[in-house]
Amino acid sequence: MLALHHENGRLQVVERPDPQPRAGEALLRVRLAGICNTDLEIARGYMGFSGILGHEVVAEVESLGPAREAPPAPATTGLTRAPLPSPVPAPGARVAVEINCACERCDTCRRGERNHCPKRTVLGILGRDGTLAERLVAPVANLHVLPGNVSDEAAVFVEPLAAAFQPFEQVQVDADDRIALLGDGKLGLLLGMAITARGLARRAVAIGRHPEKLAILAALGLRVALESDPVEAGFDVVLEATGSPTGLARALALVRPRGTLVLKSTYAGAPPLDLAPIVIQEVRVLGSRCGPFAVAIDALGRGAVDPTPLLAARYPLRDAVAAFERARRPGTLKVVVDPRA
Amino acid sequence: MLALHHENGRLQVVERPDPQPRAGEALLRVRLAGICNTDLEIARGYMGFSGILGHEVVAEVESLGPAREAPPAPATTGLTRAPLPSPVPAPGARVAVEINCACERCDTCRRGERNHCPKRTVLGILGRDGTLAERLVAPVANLHVLPGNVSDEAAVFVEPLAAAFQPFEQVQVDADDRIALLGDGKLGLLLGMAITARGLARRAVAIGRHPEKLAILAALGLRVALESDPVEAGFDVVLEATGSPTGLARALALVRPRGTLVLKSTYAGAPPLDLAPIVIQEVRVLGSRCGPFAVAIDALGRGAVDPTPLLAARYPLRDAVAAFERARRPGTLKVVVDPRA
Repeated sequence: MLALHHENGRLQVVERPDPQPRAGEALLRVRLAGICNTDLEIARGYMGFSGILGHEVVAEVESLGPAREAPPAPATTGLTRAPLPSPVPAPGARVAVEINCACERCDTCRRGERNHCPKRTVLGILGRDGTLAERLVAPVANLHVLPGNVSDEAAVFVEPLAAAFQPFEQVQVDADDRIALLGDGKLGLLLGMAITARGLARRAVAIGRHPEKLAILAALGLRVALESDPVEAGFDVVLEATGSPTGLARALALVRPRGTLVLKSTYAGAPPLDLAPIVIQEVRVLGSRCGPFAVAIDALGRGAVDPTPLLAARYPLRDAVAAFERARRPGTLKVVVDPRA
Repeated sequence: MLALHHENGRLQVVERPDPQPRAGEALLRVRLAGICNTDLEIARGYMGFSGILGHEVVAEVESLGPAREAPPAPATTGLTRAPLPSPVPAPGARVAVEINCACERCDTCRRGERNHCPKRTVLGILGRDGTLAERLVAPVANLHVLPGNVSDEAAVFVEPLAAAFQPFEQVQVDADDRIALLGDGKLGLLLGMAITARGLARRAVAIGRHPEKLAILAALGLRVALESDPVEAGFDVVLEATGSPTGLARALALVRPRGTLVLKSTYAGAPPLDLAPIVIQEVRVLGSRCGPFAVAIDALGRGAVDPTPLLAARYPLRDAVAAFERARRPGTLKVVVDPRA
């Protein structure tokens, strides 16, 4: 099969043998795979990953490996999420694929926090080949069958859209809360869609630097402002998705005392940060990463969100290196790769 | 009266007229006042404060100013704290004094968060004279009458002890949670006492750099370790009270995924900080500042905590500059000033 391989900053499309599903895994045929900013970071050396890149995908089940011994039942806890989907998808089923492949047996998994399993591998990021290929293998437990009315072009957004819904799993946000969304990149736009789908757009302000992207957020019902515009501080909830070291300082200036600041951005480096405002204002800072696939799929199925306007370009898998070049251009929204083209 | 005055890094004991209580205020006679690290920071220029220093105090009511028009009733909210004590303490009553003097009328105050009132003054820190004097004035709403069995030497710790109880107002900590306490300075030791008073010492580890202070924490029932000792990570709750820019990085290394990190330290400057672990591990970071006086006074009254072993030295008010010199010596615990000596 063809696959996009990364090693030490070198990207190339290579010919590889088809992977073989092990116990509890499925062999999947990729229909569409997305390129994410994390992939661009990995290609610059983040995570030190070598292998087949990619973690955003819509695929279909080709075959199942041998059954796996059932894991112990998870402990009951209010934090339980990412439950094991069931029943096992049949060959031919069209699926979205959770990226964290957990051991299902450690204390963290038993607490229901399999996305944080210390022994986990992560598709295309950590110790496991990813989705920018004709085929991949993934644990059956990671597969979510897609409703028929969700197109491949929408379904390829399930992983980042789930991440955009994650803040609302972590924070109780009320309809009267003032929300500030910082950043109008891909993640910022998906967060805007999640805000709207949650019925929270009425008192939300999106702050960005690209008028054409802010227009998308305005169409979702959010008030929008350029970074240089004055915005009244005192927000109950601030979502930081600028991907920039200066984002946190701006977020701290906007959040109210005892308010909540959700950090979605990761970036390389360690910017200087004055933490005193966090202590003095007793701000709650929440790191937020992967989110609930079921919630994202449900929102797509109900038509509560439509991420397809974010599609910028589609490349055949054999041109995946060119797809990366395109994704790297500043301001580019979602670039997807089609192994069947 | 005598008072310790600060302006532009210059400390001196000065003679001043007695302050006059305004509507809703009381004139208080100081029995003992404590020197806090924040005072040392202010004397180095932090907050740009000019005036009479100090915010830790046990005092007695000398007289009351005219009654103040009653403020609007506070909104009901789960976050309500620092309720207005009542009834009004009579002249002669011995009191602890909350440091944040709120307007009682703004949205923040009405939400019950008067410690964060944007119009507040703060004793000896912001726009209002402090406690290192023979007398001070403070809002009657800020006074808490002390039980007769709590000595002045214990009561002078109410303000910092309340701050040490504050994390347990903000976080639901279970008896089975593993707690790491970073820092064995004054605040670290008081946090250790709060941990013990809350019945949480069994699975708590205190990490510090002073064997003689760690011995105090060990006597409280906490496991102790030097900074250089290996400590197994994965703590459910980490309390950061090192007062050092390196403390946060250590705290992030110790907290479990989805765990809680409580920041108690403030310090000048903006150290470089890699925030990616907060996002990837979905850590919850809580700033934590002033705490519940009623809880601290109750713990002292029940004998659940005894901070008096932290008393390092006692100076007459006329020697308050020397008291500051003493408090500045590394490793010094609590220095108190007695205006009646």
